[in-house]
Amino acid sequence: MSPLTLALTWLDYAAVAVFGATGALAAARRNHDIVTFGFFAAVTGVGGGTLRDLLIGAPVFWVKQPAYVVVCLATAAVVWFTGSNRWRESVLTWLDALGMAGYSVVGAAKAEQLGAPPLTALVMGVLTATFGGVVRDVLAHESSVLLRREIYVSAAVLGAAVFVGLAAAGLSSLAAGLAGFAAALALRSCAILWGWQLPGFPQRRLGG
Amino acid sequence: MSPLTLALTWLDYAAVAVFGATGALAAARRNHDIVTFGFFAAVTGVGGGTLRDLLIGAPVFWVKQPAYVVVCLATAAVVWFTGSNRWRESVLTWLDALGMAGYSVVGAAKAEQLGAPPLTALVMGVLTATFGGVVRDVLAHESSVLLRREIYVSAAVLGAAVFVGLAAAGLSSLAAGLAGFAAALALRSCAILWGWQLPGFPQRRLGG
Amino acid sequence: MSPLTLALTWLDYAAVAVFGATGALAAARRNHDIVTFGFFAAVTGVGGGTLRDLLIGAPVFWVKQPAYVVVCLATAAVVWFTGSNRWRESVLTWLDALGMAGYSVVGAAKAEQLGAPPLTALVMGVLTATFGGVVRDVLAHESSVLLRREIYVSAAVLGAAVFVGLAAAGLSSLAAGLAGFAAALALRSCAILWGWQLPGFPQRRLGG
Repeated sequence: MSPLTLALTWLDYAAVAVFGATGALAAARRNHDIVTFGFFAAVTGVGGGTLRDLLIGAPVFWVKQPAYVVVCLATAAVVWFTGSNRWRESVLTWLDALGMAGYSVVGAAKAEQLGAPPLTALVMGVLTATFGGVVRDVLAHESSVLLRREIYVSAAVLGAAVFVGLAAAGLSSLAAGLAGFAAALALRSCAILWGWQLPGFPQRRLGG
Repeated sequence: MSPLTLALTWLDYAAVAVFGATGALAAARRNHDIVTFGFFAAVTGVGGGTLRDLLIGAPVFWVKQPAYVVVCLATAAVVWFTGSNRWRESVLTWLDALGMAGYSVVGAAKAEQLGAPPLTALVMGVLTATFGGVVRDVLAHESSVLLRREIYVSAAVLGAAVFVGLAAAGLSSLAAGLAGFAAALALRSCAILWGWQLPGFPQRRLGG
Repeated sequence: MSPLTLALTWLDYAAVAVFGATGALAAARRNHDIVTFGFFAAVTGVGGGTLRDLLIGAPVFWVKQPAYVVVCLATAAVVWFTGSNRWRESVLTWLDALGMAGYSVVGAAKAEQLGAPPLTALVMGVLTATFGGVVRDVLAHESSVLLRREIYVSAAVLGAAVFVGLAAAGLSSLAAGLAGFAAALALRSCAILWGWQLPGFPQRRLGG
């Protein structure tokens, strides 16, 4: 296994763990038992990649390699036993930003490898980065990341678009991927630090 | 491409656009930004056909032909820039009825082409016509079309049943399809114009 | 068809009917019409197995054999015409427990047959046993089985784990399946009869 592939594999597990932790924290906020912790960690951790694989017709990534599920369950156990007071919200917010930025690129790259056209690859990057969180919020009856005005989905769109655009322009996957990752992370960081938002739909246009 | 196939293709894009517009309007009602507009338009526009393709084991229709996604995003942009005041609710309601009626037939026809038995084809027609709206409502935290007593799902059932029944009786796909489309549209029209409902479950039976 | 296969097929239909009945009852509680009854019965009855088949890449079980859908619709009609007062909650709760216990084993067994590793098979058992109910609750805007503290998902985990573990240890599928079924049913019975719960996440750990 080349150093690059190895790095990507580790990145992949890291992103699954980070999203899994956000799922376990959603369970913690509602006082759930440890089995529900594991369920939420697994759904959030692997949900986005699962949808991507179903849509592009690839075998679902964790079905043959359940180590991904083990990582989610281990993360749930860590959240359970350490308690969420040590997992300061801000640490999680930043880890989540890293995971989102990484997945926007990894999701698009996997779709391109399987022959998807550029726009489809972009959509897959966005879905991989956001769908786990959407399912977590729907199941936990929380207001979904889609319904917040904070820049989140937009950052995933930017990351996937930069990757797909630069790769189409002839850059290597590695360079395009790093650029996409950096762009998504930078935009999300601005949203976290300074509350950046896109303008909402003007209400006067609803009148009439 | 024969005139019939061409007409069906245009019908398909038209239905995606109409459903996409209802998704964008759901985003408009909640004052979302333009990225969320695009997300809701895409999910609502292609959601029903995506579920159908996953269930019958066909390649998901927009993955290789992302023009469908482009149509959804363009529709979202139109709703954003023209404002929803020009999109009178009633216009949308009628366009949505056309899309629903068309999809109930198109969904069933695609399933039959791929060898599904009649009842499965009927189910696929109903899912194609209704699932995009269901996902839109779940994501937007709105009361789902399933939970309203208005005749909507029933009209899709009628349209798909007429198509499947007449095709089984030996009519051409075109004739069966037109009859199914007309039946679904007529029933839905009665529901829109005169508030037709099916009787609800009698509450006295809940006692005991 | 061997007696064992025949028994499994009957068990399968019985579980679909039981879950379908819980879906129809959810529709009854909200006073829905008969088409919605059918929709909820079908989604709840076949939802878990559908997700399992999509994830492991098997053809979705009811697409070629729509008799499963017929069973769901017939169940919905029975609930509609007999009224839910005859379907005492407790009868349903126990039937649901039987269905859950059976599906935790059947889901895991089907995944193993298709070459899934043990942990994946366990996950599939749990998903098959619980996902139909989760979709029913999300669509009906009810509090999901995942969010109740009652032991339910845990019983499915136990049943699937006992089956997978004993099968890996060399027992026959039949013996391992019966043991798994009995374990899941016993644990769920304790939850129903004596309100067994797992401890929730200690709120003091949320502080900090």
